[in-house]
Amino acid sequence: MTSEPQRQSPRRQPIARGDEEFGRVLAFSDGLFAIAMTLLVVGIAVPELGNPDERELWDALADMESAYVSFFISFIVIGRYWIAHHQFFRLLSKLDYGLIWINMIYLAFVAFLPFPTALLGTYFENPVSVAAYAVSIAIVSGLEVLLLRHAHRHRLLERLLPDDVYRWGVLLSATPVFFFLGSIPIAFASTTIAVLFWFGGIPLQLLVLNRWKPANADEYIG
Amino acid sequence: MTSEPQRQSPRRQPIARGDEEFGRVLAFSDGLFAIAMTLLVVGIAVPELGNPDERELWDALADMESAYVSFFISFIVIGRYWIAHHQFFRLLSKLDYGLIWINMIYLAFVAFLPFPTALLGTYFENPVSVAAYAVSIAIVSGLEVLLLRHAHRHRLLERLLPDDVYRWGVLLSATPVFFFLGSIPIAFASTTIAVLFWFGGIPLQLLVLNRWKPANADEYIG
Amino acid sequence: MTSEPQRQSPRRQPIARGDEEFGRVLAFSDGLFAIAMTLLVVGIAVPELGNPDERELWDALADMESAYVSFFISFIVIGRYWIAHHQFFRLLSKLDYGLIWINMIYLAFVAFLPFPTALLGTYFENPVSVAAYAVSIAIVSGLEVLLLRHAHRHRLLERLLPDDVYRWGVLLSATPVFFFLGSIPIAFASTTIAVLFWFGGIPLQLLVLNRWKPANADEYIG
Amino acid sequence: MTSEPQRQSPRRQPIARGDEEFGRVLAFSDGLFAIAMTLLVVGIAVPELGNPDERELWDALADMESAYVSFFISFIVIGRYWIAHHQFFRLLSKLDYGLIWINMIYLAFVAFLPFPTALLGTYFENPVSVAAYAVSIAIVSGLEVLLLRHAHRHRLLERLLPDDVYRWGVLLSATPVFFFLGSIPIAFASTTIAVLFWFGGIPLQLLVLNRWKPANADEYIG
Repeated sequence: MTSEPQRQSPRRQPIARGDEEFGRVLAFSDGLFAIAMTLLVVGIAVPELGNPDERELWDALADMESAYVSFFISFIVIGRYWIAHHQFFRLLSKLDYGLIWINMIYLAFVAFLPFPTALLGTYFENPVSVAAYAVSIAIVSGLEVLLLRHAHRHRLLERLLPDDVYRWGVLLSATPVFFFLGSIPIAFASTTIAVLFWFGGIPLQLLVLNRWKPANADEYIG
Repeated sequence: MTSEPQRQSPRRQPIARGDEEFGRVLAFSDGLFAIAMTLLVVGIAVPELGNPDERELWDALADMESAYVSFFISFIVIGRYWIAHHQFFRLLSKLDYGLIWINMIYLAFVAFLPFPTALLGTYFENPVSVAAYAVSIAIVSGLEVLLLRHAHRHRLLERLLPDDVYRWGVLLSATPVFFFLGSIPIAFASTTIAVLFWFGGIPLQLLVLNRWKPANADEYIG
Repeated sequence: MTSEPQRQSPRRQPIARGDEEFGRVLAFSDGLFAIAMTLLVVGIAVPELGNPDERELWDALADMESAYVSFFISFIVIGRYWIAHHQFFRLLSKLDYGLIWINMIYLAFVAFLPFPTALLGTYFENPVSVAAYAVSIAIVSGLEVLLLRHAHRHRLLERLLPDDVYRWGVLLSATPVFFFLGSIPIAFASTTIAVLFWFGGIPLQLLVLNRWKPANADEYIG
Repeated sequence: MTSEPQRQSPRRQPIARGDEEFGRVLAFSDGLFAIAMTLLVVGIAVPELGNPDERELWDALADMESAYVSFFISFIVIGRYWIAHHQFFRLLSKLDYGLIWINMIYLAFVAFLPFPTALLGTYFENPVSVAAYAVSIAIVSGLEVLLLRHAHRHRLLERLLPDDVYRWGVLLSATPVFFFLGSIPIAFASTTIAVLFWFGGIPLQLLVLNRWKPANADEYIG
């Protein structure tokens, strides 16, 4: 897009950091994250029990354990993507409409997450729920890779990344794709192990990835 | 309104870009867009199945295909209006209360869109759903035309548009009105073709419109 | 509160316009308005019809007419309060925690409005719905009066209002209280007339009120 | 975290007040509070009555009294936490990712509150609802203590707190933890008294706490 001849068009020009429009894209993204995270609670329905005594209400609430677990897992997972989104946008010196559209599709999948979360909260022990959730998260991570790639190729980053740092950044963003997809076969053995794998395995994998971390990566992408 | 004699009233005065109030109108509009787009997911209900096995849950989720399709179509469509809304507001040097009220009615129809989206997701093969959706979107586009017309006539734009550029801008905003309304008879033959028509036909029509594009349009409205 | 001796406490000090905190109270209020207005759509449920033909779906949608009417009435009514809220906050030079708490209670009733709106959409012809809606709106207007009174008495306004202008401002905000409460007996004769009364009568009453408008009111409160 | 050797990493560096990122964390928190407070209304369902006469609709609405009470209690309680959150953030000169994560978990529990609120609105007379609500609020207050502790220990506060002022701040934040937990046994005698205890007892307890308030506390934390 930026290589087209009609350079004079304001619609085609990249939007520089500091421009009001730059801030609005960030504020819009933040708002969408905040709403998606808060809407997760809508998936937890009050049990319909007529006029329950204490025991009945307690049992009904205890039975909904996986709804609470799914809510908090999703809140933390989306929260982690929100932080990663900030860390990515801090690297940018400008935006183009290509990036705005990739960001829009990325946000579409973030906004979609309350559905697989509610699914997981309702059918926690069904591997199909776990698979639906894992695929949704893997797509969000995949789009994170596309955001970085687009920014790198169209020179939207404040500082051009050296090749090894760029490759390491891609690896870091792409890891959860393989990881969440990899949890799907595990879910067919045990959904609980699959979910534990998300939380236990990712820090482990990051440790392993750290071996390939270029010495100067922190300077560029933290 | 701006031509009334009581010029001293702060309530009647136009609000200049840079004024805190200008920013609040934009932030409010952005917030409303973000919420409407995120609420689309509320229209996708978790299937109620008791204690399904993997096959049953998979089948139930596969049956909901049109709910996912409607969610993503609507997210992208509303996202496109959000971008157009930004591109329009970037052209303004001030706001008046007439524009604020047209914007309010425009936002009312944006906020309404989760309903026809959920309708489309539930009765995708029913042409009445497609018609309800198409009419809603056509109204949003029609109000976009009114926003541009009001801004042009009340001299709220940073740079006065030459007549041919203004007419071209109106044509560009009005096109989806005719287009979405035109998809309604198609829906009575096939709803899938009507939906494909939205996505296939619009780029085509833009190509055709480009022939009438004034040479200097990019300078003014990108 | 501001008259207490411990003046040094940052928590007790008024917050000046331009202070970051001043902006956050406004942004929070705007966000709450935007969400309440967008949540109105959640009250419009997709009809559950199995596999309807075109006629059945059309009839079901046509039967929901009052749900659409209530949505748009409420959107415009809340939008009008949002604009009034802006016009009020533009007059302030500072905030105190008394005003922040009155604003919080005001926002609680704004956030409550999707419920009476959904009620009106479901039981439009029942005068009890109209009464519930009218009472909710009357309370919001009543709290608007309290906001103005508190700001006037605690000298939070940029320019001290002359007595006649202040009284006129109170009258202007208080009018909808009597007006909406006055529509309740009408609703027991006809709910449609009661609703038309909201829209037809208010402009009329404003015309009448204009006779008592102090000559210099526009200078102070627009 | 801030004591690690790789100081050069932008991801690990604390975020100073005035930095764009500082503002985004606040705006995100505010947005989440506003949404959680507005979503409370979703817990109040329109009664399903077919075609009720005035008496039936009135009775149905009167029966839902505890839904309205729960809505307003929760709105005011969350509003009070929002104000406390602001007062805390005003004390900070910088943020680190440790604080951002504690804030995220704090916000997760804020976002969760519409569920126990809806529970309380539905089963107000059941002590299990009151207990679920009280535990949720107690956790939010507990996380408030952790925020203050982290900020104090990692020197994120604008002015280092003297030991007695810090201890008093912790006491102030921790009080509702014991208070809400203490209301649970009361709820098993009477849920109404438990709820009144929240509102009546807290001001009382604050009065008692004031006896231990260090003389210079206001200078530091208001």
